[in-house]
Amino acid sequence: MRFTTLADGSSDGRLHLVSRDNSRCIPAAAVSSLRLLMEDWDSFAPALEAEYAALNDGGGAPFQPAEALAPLPRAWQWLDGSAYDSHGALMQKVFGADPNPEGRPLMYQGMSHCFLGGAQDVPLPSEDDGIDFEGEFGVICDSVPMGSTPAEAAARIRLLVQINDWSLRAIAPVEMKTGFGWVQAKPACAVAPVALTPDELGEAWRDSRIDLPLQVDLNGNRFGLAEGYPMSYGFDQLIAHAAQSRDLVAGTVLGSGTVSNETYREVGSTCIAERRAIELLDEGKQSTPYMHFGDRVFMECRSRDQSPLFGAIDQQVVKGGRA
Amino acid sequence: MRFTTLADGSSDGRLHLVSRDNSRCIPAAAVSSLRLLMEDWDSFAPALEAEYAALNDGGGAPFQPAEALAPLPRAWQWLDGSAYDSHGALMQKVFGADPNPEGRPLMYQGMSHCFLGGAQDVPLPSEDDGIDFEGEFGVICDSVPMGSTPAEAAARIRLLVQINDWSLRAIAPVEMKTGFGWVQAKPACAVAPVALTPDELGEAWRDSRIDLPLQVDLNGNRFGLAEGYPMSYGFDQLIAHAAQSRDLVAGTVLGSGTVSNETYREVGSTCIAERRAIELLDEGKQSTPYMHFGDRVFMECRSRDQSPLFGAIDQQVVKGGRA
Repeated sequence: MRFTTLADGSSDGRLHLVSRDNSRCIPAAAVSSLRLLMEDWDSFAPALEAEYAALNDGGGAPFQPAEALAPLPRAWQWLDGSAYDSHGALMQKVFGADPNPEGRPLMYQGMSHCFLGGAQDVPLPSEDDGIDFEGEFGVICDSVPMGSTPAEAAARIRLLVQINDWSLRAIAPVEMKTGFGWVQAKPACAVAPVALTPDELGEAWRDSRIDLPLQVDLNGNRFGLAEGYPMSYGFDQLIAHAAQSRDLVAGTVLGSGTVSNETYREVGSTCIAERRAIELLDEGKQSTPYMHFGDRVFMECRSRDQSPLFGAIDQQVVKGGRA
Repeated sequence: MRFTTLADGSSDGRLHLVSRDNSRCIPAAAVSSLRLLMEDWDSFAPALEAEYAALNDGGGAPFQPAEALAPLPRAWQWLDGSAYDSHGALMQKVFGADPNPEGRPLMYQGMSHCFLGGAQDVPLPSEDDGIDFEGEFGVICDSVPMGSTPAEAAARIRLLVQINDWSLRAIAPVEMKTGFGWVQAKPACAVAPVALTPDELGEAWRDSRIDLPLQVDLNGNRFGLAEGYPMSYGFDQLIAHAAQSRDLVAGTVLGSGTVSNETYREVGSTCIAERRAIELLDEGKQSTPYMHFGDRVFMECRSRDQSPLFGAIDQQVVKGGRA
C-alpha cells in the first residue's frame, strides 16, 4: 500500500491512499489519519488493502505530491541512527568527534512533534548556523516491546519513508561536546510525500535495508547518488537497539542516518558536511558553503526502472523565527 | 488550578480537576484530556477556572493520588535541562565528561511517548545497567514560537510538575561519548500525580523557578532534601534555549535536571550517582549501590507549611522486557 497525508486543517492531516503509479489518490475510508492507523494497524489494514486494490483499478483524484504534508505530520517518537560507516568516518574528520564505540549503533532522539512536508519551506533562524540537509531513509514501526530481537523488530516494520534530516553544523559540535546530543542543531525534519509498505519495493527491500539509490541535487545540480543498502546495521537492528530499555510506541519513526557509500568520490554525498570533509581530505580546505536562504535541495529515491516510490523532497530554506 | 489524569482505557487518560487541598477530584467537563487542553489552553481555561472554583466549594470524589497516571501520559516533546551547576560538577567527577560550554544551558531531547504515573512500577531490563532516579521539577508549556525571548517564554508556562527522570548509569557514559546523547540510558520518566498552574505556588514560584525543597527517600531512608530555587538558568531561559531553532509544540514538557545544591554534603542528593560522586571525593571510592529490583524511591515537594502540591512519586523498580 501507498499512503499520503493531505492538509485538512487538523494537526494530523487527512490520510489518503495513493495508486501504485503515484498518479491518483483517494481519502482512506477506514481511518482518518496515519497516526490513528499506526495506533491500530492490524485492525485497519484489511479494509485499507481492499481500498488500495480498488484504487489501483481506477478512480480517485489526481495526486499532487507537492501538496502533501509529511505522511506523519507529528509522531510520538523520532529516533535517528547513523548506520553508514563512511558518513561517520567523514564526520569525524571534519568535526573531530570521538570514534563510535564498537558493536553499538549510533542513535539520537530528535524532535517528533513536527515533520515538514516534502515541498514545504524550511524556516531557520540564521545562515550563520551552517544550514545543511541530510538524505536518509526511514521506517515507521508498530509497537515494539522492550527487549525485542532484531527478527522480532523486523516483523514490526509497517512503512518505509524518505527523510531530509535538517542540521545546523555550526551548533552541532558544540552540542555534541556536552554528550547530551542535539537540540538546537536538529530542527524539524522533512519527509517525502508517500509512505510505502515494504512489499511495494519488491526485492529492493532486503535484509531490513532499502536497496535503491537516493538522488540529491542542490540548486539544480547533482550533489549525490548514493546507494541505500550498505548500512552497517539494518533497520531491524536499529529498532532492537532502540527497544533495549523501552517499549517503542506504535508510530515510532526510525531513521538510517545520512546515506553514504565508501565510494563517495564517485557517488557524491547526501549532505554538505560530508562533501566538505572530502574537500578537507583531498584539497586541504573546505570549499562548498552551507546553505543560504533561497537555496533549494531536491531528494528522490526511485525504483531501478525509474518508477516513482516516495515522491520527491524539494525544499527551499527561508528566514524563520522572530525578527 | 490543579489537574490530575486518571485511567479510562484511553492513551491520554481522563483529565480531572483536584481541589486545592488535594483531597477531592472531579472529571473536567470542558475537555477530556490534558493533551487536548494543552493544544487549546486559552479556549478551555475560563470554563475550567469556574469548575475549579466550584470544586473548592465542595463536591467531587475522594482523590486517590496513587491511582493517578502521569498528568500527560504521553506528550509530543520532552526536553530536559541540567540547570543545577553542583549536579553537573559532580557528574563530571564521576563520569569524566567534558565541562559544559560557558553561557549555554545543557539540554537533551528524551522519550515523550510514555510518562509513568507516580505510583507505577518501573520496568527495566537489567540490574547491571546502573539503575538510578533523578528528582526534578518541570513545566508544561503552551506553544512557543521559534526565537522567543526568555520573557516571552515565561508567559507561555502553563503548568508545573515534579518528575523522576529514570537513568541507567552504566550506559549513560557510553552514549555520551558518541555525542549523540541518550537513548538506552534514558527510559520512561515518571511524573507526580498533580500538575499545578504557577499561581498555586504563590511566592514560591519566582524568577521562573520553584522555590521549594524536594524530598527524596530511598527504601524509606532520607536521601536528599534539596532546594529547587538555585537553577543557573530559569525555566524561561531553558524554554528560550529550546526554541532557538524550532517552534515548541503546545504541551512540551521541559525539565530542570536533577535538583542539586552547592551544600550537597548537608542537604544530600536527589540521585544516586551524585552521592557516589561525593563518596569518591570524600572517601576515594563509590559505596552506595545503584538500585535493585524491588527497591523503592519516594519523592515529594510540599509547600513550606507542608501543604500538599504535586503529590508523591513512590515507585518500585521491577524486571521488565522479554525473558
